[in-house]
Amino acid sequence: MAARAVPAAIVFDTFGSVVDWRGSLIGELTAFGVSRGIAADWAGLVDAWRAAYHPSMQLVRAGAVGWTRLDDLHRAALDRLVGEFGIAGLSEVDLAHINRGWHRLNPWPDAVAGLTRLKTRFIIGPLSNGNVSLLTNMAKHAGLPWDMVFGSDLFGHYKPDPETYLGVARLLDLAPGQVMMAAAHNGDLAAARKCGLMTAFFPRPGEYGPHRKRDFAAEGEWDVVAGDIEDLAGRLGV
Amino acid sequence: MAARAVPAAIVFDTFGSVVDWRGSLIGELTAFGVSRGIAADWAGLVDAWRAAYHPSMQLVRAGAVGWTRLDDLHRAALDRLVGEFGIAGLSEVDLAHINRGWHRLNPWPDAVAGLTRLKTRFIIGPLSNGNVSLLTNMAKHAGLPWDMVFGSDLFGHYKPDPETYLGVARLLDLAPGQVMMAAAHNGDLAAARKCGLMTAFFPRPGEYGPHRKRDFAAEGEWDVVAGDIEDLAGRLGV
Repeated sequence: MAARAVPAAIVFDTFGSVVDWRGSLIGELTAFGVSRGIAADWAGLVDAWRAAYHPSMQLVRAGAVGWTRLDDLHRAALDRLVGEFGIAGLSEVDLAHINRGWHRLNPWPDAVAGLTRLKTRFIIGPLSNGNVSLLTNMAKHAGLPWDMVFGSDLFGHYKPDPETYLGVARLLDLAPGQVMMAAAHNGDLAAARKCGLMTAFFPRPGEYGPHRKRDFAAEGEWDVVAGDIEDLAGRLGV
Repeated sequence: MAARAVPAAIVFDTFGSVVDWRGSLIGELTAFGVSRGIAADWAGLVDAWRAAYHPSMQLVRAGAVGWTRLDDLHRAALDRLVGEFGIAGLSEVDLAHINRGWHRLNPWPDAVAGLTRLKTRFIIGPLSNGNVSLLTNMAKHAGLPWDMVFGSDLFGHYKPDPETYLGVARLLDLAPGQVMMAAAHNGDLAAARKCGLMTAFFPRPGEYGPHRKRDFAAEGEWDVVAGDIEDLAGRLGV
């Protein structure tokens, strides 16, 4: 039996795969609303905010707008949604603070321990549609022990554009097959595989709360299928 | 008395400031020569290799050649120097291994402890003429706890081009005045200051062994002058 190939580097999808964006933002905004006496459907706002994510990036991918950082896409969607949700009384400082909530997301319970184990043997980093500042601030907040931060602004492209996956290999001076993409999203892994990367899946059944529609389980013959990031470390022998 | 401004991020010159390139390479090559029975002036080779550093980057800065990663500049100089030093019997594998010696440099004794302290309060990273892969591999080898790796290939420019210093501020979404450049080289700090960055100096008297010609002490009114990186942490209150 041939020995399984092992990667030199593992890059992680971040929103939903490493950090719990929904629980973090609903928690923070609910507390904010209480402290400021602003009653609102904060959970609905968060779900609508995330729903704006893919369409707003698609405008960039399609070239309808020039390169725009995720922070700025988030802010444009937030400005629209506070109106739609009838939330009044927010200052510019408030809106900037709320928008930076994406920099303060909390990790899933296994993430820090699993990444810390993986870091002992592999180069690890996020490969995320977030910008470098967002991901760096998030790592400081959440204690994510990345070796290198691969923000989409390094490439001027959003996943699943191949420039992102291949850009990691280029910057690390590795062949694509020496880089493993790890994610809770089958589509991300499918795009990575097309570029020649190795792939690892682990499910995050709680990512969308009651609204989950996909990614309940692995849907491809991924190189590794794990229960979470700690289990991924174990399956890779660390 | 006005409170001193504090940075949000501190970026470090790396070769000579954080790692001891000369001692590391002479040690590694001397051991290599013994193990392979190749007698050579390894110390002379290392000094000549480093002497090729600034002229080779200057060709890129001046536009005489297109963007070329430091790994490739190092390799071109090495290929020339092994001939000049009369070193025979090196295979392609040997030359590639020797060239990657720049990825395996050892830290100065205070570096890991000082950076670990600084990381508790500040975003820290190298801002180096090394490429991302070189710096990432070096960090794994030396245990440098960077938050983010600012390799010159992210900018397509070598220091002291302003695109490097300003590129850090852009990627971190900070004003230049919120970023501190820390280095054992006055020229690097002067260029950073011109771009609006804060500056910190600490000397590395052993960097060039007996061949040191400059940077014995601070030559500008830098924001902080420290004895080493641990002392820098203390002066910044961590």
